[in-house]
Amino acid sequence: MGILSTVKFQVAFFEQFGSAGFSALERSLCRATDLGLRVIADAKRSDIGSSMAGYARAWVANDSPFRAAAVTVSPFMGVEGLAEVAEIAAAAGRTVFVLVATSNPEGRSIQAGSGKSLAFQILSAVNLLQETHHSLGVVIGANLNLREYGLQRIKAEALGFPILAPGFGHQGARLSTCSSHFGLSAEWVIPNVGRSVLTGNPECLPDRLTSALEELL
Amino acid sequence: MGILSTVKFQVAFFEQFGSAGFSALERSLCRATDLGLRVIADAKRSDIGSSMAGYARAWVANDSPFRAAAVTVSPFMGVEGLAEVAEIAAAAGRTVFVLVATSNPEGRSIQAGSGKSLAFQILSAVNLLQETHHSLGVVIGANLNLREYGLQRIKAEALGFPILAPGFGHQGARLSTCSSHFGLSAEWVIPNVGRSVLTGNPECLPDRLTSALEELL
Repeated sequence: MGILSTVKFQVAFFEQFGSAGFSALERSLCRATDLGLRVIADAKRSDIGSSMAGYARAWVANDSPFRAAAVTVSPFMGVEGLAEVAEIAAAAGRTVFVLVATSNPEGRSIQAGSGKSLAFQILSAVNLLQETHHSLGVVIGANLNLREYGLQRIKAEALGFPILAPGFGHQGARLSTCSSHFGLSAEWVIPNVGRSVLTGNPECLPDRLTSALEELL
Repeated sequence: MGILSTVKFQVAFFEQFGSAGFSALERSLCRATDLGLRVIADAKRSDIGSSMAGYARAWVANDSPFRAAAVTVSPFMGVEGLAEVAEIAAAAGRTVFVLVATSNPEGRSIQAGSGKSLAFQILSAVNLLQETHHSLGVVIGANLNLREYGLQRIKAEALGFPILAPGFGHQGARLSTCSSHFGLSAEWVIPNVGRSVLTGNPECLPDRLTSALEELL
């Protein structure tokens, strides 16, 4: 279509159908990649190093069964434990998006906070890991008050690596404010729209995508 | 064998083989369940409510493709967002183990802390969720200093729901100290041994399990 550069697959909605669902996901990921789309597998995987390496082989290695350009991971078990997945992804030219500040309201009590928030701590650790491996990105909701999450610095200083940003549309943020919201880091933002373009007549999807793009630019 | 009550499957090691790996996992889970074992799927899934419901349907609903008595989940996106997975599990008589304090060293900087640690905050939120749904458990490493994680209270007061405890064997904790380590909550502990019994001649696995059991009792 030319309007779309990237597509994000929510893995849970395939996983609920078991191995048959994963088989459909394998085919869908290949199909999307063959269409020239960059594919993000939204898996939010999380584990200790050796198990994370298994997830890396599943999603972002050269010969991964699930063919994705990027995968999302959760940092709850420590960012340092993500070194191996970052290394595997780097070798394959893929990206690992680490959750930093998620767009759902339930995430606030864990990730936000006065002083040095957990979100800030994770972003700092991702920054450090990025110096060795160059395969990292972060997830930061576009509908959040960055100051509340201790992340206001990214407005004044370009982050330098990709920010996958949910929170647009139904979750409250407007695409037209993306640039002012993220400041100097806005050029690194991959704005993610879901329900707001997917809901409605499928035949009008290109129109809704075009509208979203126009709002962004 | 009679020595073993519960077996935990590390999902990453199946996932790395794609849908074929998941197909093998489906069969393995059924086989273990048919043998009378309680099966824990160590998936550490994490997402917002609607996606978590997908994961719940995958692992702990009545007609789940992956047949498990319990699944592990990560609380990074907020414990409140786990209400639906807890509800689905409760309806099916299954258990959801929430990561509270993991046994790997990289987890410390996120989960531990002076004052009210993140581990303490999560445990409190799980306690609250447990009042409505009765399907929750927690993961607390046996090799951790509970005080450092703000969890010393569980020694003086029985937790009242299952504690899946990694950290024995190679990670440093001894089964013989399980009772003193967890105090009044020890009766709720499911001690998890992995490499320390799995490494070595497979034919001697029952002997290693018996030794582990003797050390525990």
